[in-house]
Amino acid sequence: MKTSLDCIPCFIRQATDTLKMAAKSENDRMRLINNFLQWIGEVDLDQSPPAIAQIIHRRLRGILPTDDPYRAAKNMHNALAASLTPSIRRRIEASPDPLTMAVRYAITGNIIDLGAKNSIGFGEIYAELQSAPQQPIFGDMEAFKKAIKQAKTILYLTDNAGEIFFDRLLIERLSDAKITLAVRGNPVINDATRSDAQAADIGAVAEIIDNGSDAPGTILDDCSSEFRRRFGEADVVIAKGQGNFESLTEKSGNIFFLFRTKCPVISSNSGFDLGTYVAANHFTRKDISCN
Amino acid sequence: MKTSLDCIPCFIRQATDTLKMAAKSENDRMRLINNFLQWIGEVDLDQSPPAIAQIIHRRLRGILPTDDPYRAAKNMHNALAASLTPSIRRRIEASPDPLTMAVRYAITGNIIDLGAKNSIGFGEIYAELQSAPQQPIFGDMEAFKKAIKQAKTILYLTDNAGEIFFDRLLIERLSDAKITLAVRGNPVINDATRSDAQAADIGAVAEIIDNGSDAPGTILDDCSSEFRRRFGEADVVIAKGQGNFESLTEKSGNIFFLFRTKCPVISSNSGFDLGTYVAANHFTRKDISCN
Repeated sequence: MKTSLDCIPCFIRQATDTLKMAAKSENDRMRLINNFLQWIGEVDLDQSPPAIAQIIHRRLRGILPTDDPYRAAKNMHNALAASLTPSIRRRIEASPDPLTMAVRYAITGNIIDLGAKNSIGFGEIYAELQSAPQQPIFGDMEAFKKAIKQAKTILYLTDNAGEIFFDRLLIERLSDAKITLAVRGNPVINDATRSDAQAADIGAVAEIIDNGSDAPGTILDDCSSEFRRRFGEADVVIAKGQGNFESLTEKSGNIFFLFRTKCPVISSNSGFDLGTYVAANHFTRKDISCN
Repeated sequence: MKTSLDCIPCFIRQATDTLKMAAKSENDRMRLINNFLQWIGEVDLDQSPPAIAQIIHRRLRGILPTDDPYRAAKNMHNALAASLTPSIRRRIEASPDPLTMAVRYAITGNIIDLGAKNSIGFGEIYAELQSAPQQPIFGDMEAFKKAIKQAKTILYLTDNAGEIFFDRLLIERLSDAKITLAVRGNPVINDATRSDAQAADIGAVAEIIDNGSDAPGTILDDCSSEFRRRFGEADVVIAKGQGNFESLTEKSGNIFFLFRTKCPVISSNSGFDLGTYVAANHFTRKDISCN
């Protein structure tokens, strides 16, 4: 998916958010944003949003005294999600259709996204969890169920920390297939890495691998050859979140995208209204409207 | 007031909004934002937000085929405000304290601000108008009333098109003082210029002048000498909106600022919570928090 004009303010907001998390003083932050703005013109905008975000966040980590500015935010979201997991698991178990309910909560978890928003409050997460059981899922849910039933191997591509606890609840419902869960290879924004998968104890239900990349999405050419092999061999790929959608929609394969449409650009590109719960492997792209 | 880190994404969002209004195609918009990002690093961030916005919008007008990209938006807001004026005037007349009620509606009109937001829907304006009569006004309202009563000359600095119709309703209530209304000297964002003052027929109730500047605020050093003379001689200055607050808070004089706090930066700098109706000439600045 190509980057559109509306992605640009979001990239800059991600940069200022990152500086707030990791720079020591307002003076430092202003000096660093000045440095950043002097460099931003060098970025080739004719790439997907995750490819541009990868370059931007590499630069930010390069000028900051930390290589993981979002670590504290990720820890907080992991702790919150861990505290919610037992009650959500009970709700899934009590549902007449546990797989669909688990998909619903996995999509709910996708609101914990500091790439699409500058903060996510506990109140917002709780409100979303309350409405989750009633949310209709748009796309290809029946095809998803069928594919899951037939699959012998499933590759699950995660999105964010915190959210990964909700992913675990879905993985617990994915029948008897061999599940591999892939996180990012290095920290970028609040995307889940290996330590987040371990915090959610995913090892108990799936094999954990990383994709070898620091893009906030799955740019196959940038991933390790081992990851690409797993990607090619999986019967079904489950790709969570907007970043994976942005980077994988043009790839062939049995990929099911699970996400919530959180910005107008994704809404236009996926064909689903803003705020929709999506589980789909086919998309009817709307014309991008800039009004 | 100095520019803070949180102003930066807002400037970039203003740039993309402007390109959407005036560039012909998505290809053109992407080419122009690329051009803009290659230039943005040259801007000295150690200035007030209106000074930076002035430089940015000059640049945008320079690369666009129009010198007034917001003209259509301004016309639409003027037409909407014109249609609302008779009923609001009746509400002000029916109030036990018409001056305070007129101040309230003048502040309500300040939500029509495309600098602080990328769009303002009719629904949002109607909802705000419904709640306006109950809004408490924070600051120095009694001092404002006293100053107005004693003033022989009042200089009224406008903010945006559309909003200027609400300003007229307040001007109608400003006793027998000689009123001069000053608009921006040239188009910038959706700030009111002379044609907007004429659309609201301000000439019937005040003398219309312009400040000679294309900053979205009042940077005295950038204004005409004639404007500066009027500014210095006025018994009372009424300064509408965030841009005038950002550029005039450090100036001495009997200046009353009327605005709604629409962003966290202004909230921190004014000491009033987000969303507050403010009519004040003294401010207790909060420490800026970047969290």
